[in-house]
Amino acid sequence: MGGEEPDGVFLGIDLGGSQLKAARFSPEGAREAAENTASQASGDAEDIFSALYAHAAALIGGSHLLGIGVGVAGLIDSGSGRILNSPNIPALSGFPLRDRVREAFGGEIPVLMMNDANAAALGEYFAGAGKSCSSMFLLTLGTGIGGGFVIDGNLWTGAAGVGAEAGHMCVRADGPLCRCGARGCLEACVSGWALMRDADQIAKRDPESAIAGMSPRTPLALAELATAGDRQARTLWENAGAMLGTGIANLMNLLNPDCIVLTGGLGEAGALLLKPARRAWESQAFKETRASTSVKPGVLGEWAGVRGAIQPFLGK
Amino acid sequence: MGGEEPDGVFLGIDLGGSQLKAARFSPEGAREAAENTASQASGDAEDIFSALYAHAAALIGGSHLLGIGVGVAGLIDSGSGRILNSPNIPALSGFPLRDRVREAFGGEIPVLMMNDANAAALGEYFAGAGKSCSSMFLLTLGTGIGGGFVIDGNLWTGAAGVGAEAGHMCVRADGPLCRCGARGCLEACVSGWALMRDADQIAKRDPESAIAGMSPRTPLALAELATAGDRQARTLWENAGAMLGTGIANLMNLLNPDCIVLTGGLGEAGALLLKPARRAWESQAFKETRASTSVKPGVLGEWAGVRGAIQPFLGK
Repeated sequence: MGGEEPDGVFLGIDLGGSQLKAARFSPEGAREAAENTASQASGDAEDIFSALYAHAAALIGGSHLLGIGVGVAGLIDSGSGRILNSPNIPALSGFPLRDRVREAFGGEIPVLMMNDANAAALGEYFAGAGKSCSSMFLLTLGTGIGGGFVIDGNLWTGAAGVGAEAGHMCVRADGPLCRCGARGCLEACVSGWALMRDADQIAKRDPESAIAGMSPRTPLALAELATAGDRQARTLWENAGAMLGTGIANLMNLLNPDCIVLTGGLGEAGALLLKPARRAWESQAFKETRASTSVKPGVLGEWAGVRGAIQPFLGK
Repeated sequence: MGGEEPDGVFLGIDLGGSQLKAARFSPEGAREAAENTASQASGDAEDIFSALYAHAAALIGGSHLLGIGVGVAGLIDSGSGRILNSPNIPALSGFPLRDRVREAFGGEIPVLMMNDANAAALGEYFAGAGKSCSSMFLLTLGTGIGGGFVIDGNLWTGAAGVGAEAGHMCVRADGPLCRCGARGCLEACVSGWALMRDADQIAKRDPESAIAGMSPRTPLALAELATAGDRQARTLWENAGAMLGTGIANLMNLLNPDCIVLTGGLGEAGALLLKPARRAWESQAFKETRASTSVKPGVLGEWAGVRGAIQPFLGK
């Protein structure tokens, strides 16, 4: 028989705090077309949904739709598809996104929801940096820090589907306050917002500093300053990198996965972040765990999430 | 047909830094006889092995031996059954314990080796506090801190079989030096040796203190002092408990298992340790993770390891 592919497309969506990404995929998971736009995260839920629907519909065009996978920055109730809590897109907390998407596309299309970091983890595992690994932990290094843990092709999401929250692992008891309310979380020491908090403090204390003069004040601008030799900027990256390395050492000793994949915008700082990180994990993880867990960058970049969101339709 | 049980026994052995425990089990895993003796951990490997063999042989008596399971404090190479590294029983590092046990019992008996905390985790999962859980993380709170992670009846031991080393998760960057060489590991903040290190410092600084007068200076004596109202002793338990709670919050947020089981001698301190620990994890873990991960004491006590060591023979 074989040979004829089923006619149709999958749609992957990645709804984050700053960007809405959507892509159309072949039935085998090859990306055919993609769009990236602002996510209107400060708007109300209906605005966000309208933008999402418009982009999705445009990408699908006249194709036969086989299924939609959605990754969202937040905690998802996998049973109801409701968004339990989305710190970065507050308007979506409680919003029945899965049912609304399904209705909008006629009510018959399968729609899957998952956390955005979990979606990125599935993407890198099946189609990116983790392809040769049987177990993989993905860290998303962006404004916040997310995690996804894949074992033998299955996401480990824990008893309530909330696990792998590596950004909220305490690495510095009595350290800086985190947005989650605890102290010393990895995210409070090494994320984009943590770097900007530290940059703001320097700017306030030292208005003549190069950091005070940054405009706009972003992690990318901070990386450029450090690369140009600014001592204060270099120290911020050194400190953040050391804490990232401590978090990676913890994942090595606790989980010893085949690989740890680093993705997200902060990775653009490259050696500024990774050199002190490597120094830390090499001195802190057991030699047996660091020898058997490789650390590597993601290869799908910002498209890992849309690819991973449709993975459950493709099987292992 | 049915009804007739296969004639024979399993032998479980738990070789720790201070005690050698051995027990005889029915083919269904019921404990029939057990022995507990000093492990001669400071002797050479042959002394340790001779003691182990003598106790094992006595327990087996004339019974038909079906298999031997051994849990050892150290990193085990599951392929060769060789002990890679045993910080608490240095003489065993590199010792081919599995082959020696097999030869001593005639060369035909299946012999399984695993890390002692992993053995305890299997014991509590299949025959103890974790019986109703699908995923369970076990923390052994003793002289050191060990861990074992069971998912759907399988131990998660990672890429090199070394995972679940929860004692060497950093929770306090720049904290006290750990025996592993890193700083601020959970074990360096909350284990038996960490408490004794702190007690020794107090005794040195304040020779008139009740802590200086403790004889012998043990965690149990420190718990008695605290229970009797000694302020310095209470503070040590408060601090250790708070860090234990931070470690538990990390396991909740990272792994969100159905349950976290606490076992080991330090647990005898009861509320001295658990009250501050609970305060810490309740303020630090996400409400979704702490609501879905229960924390409970082990029920097999010091016999969890011998029971778990034979679990692989029994199947799931």
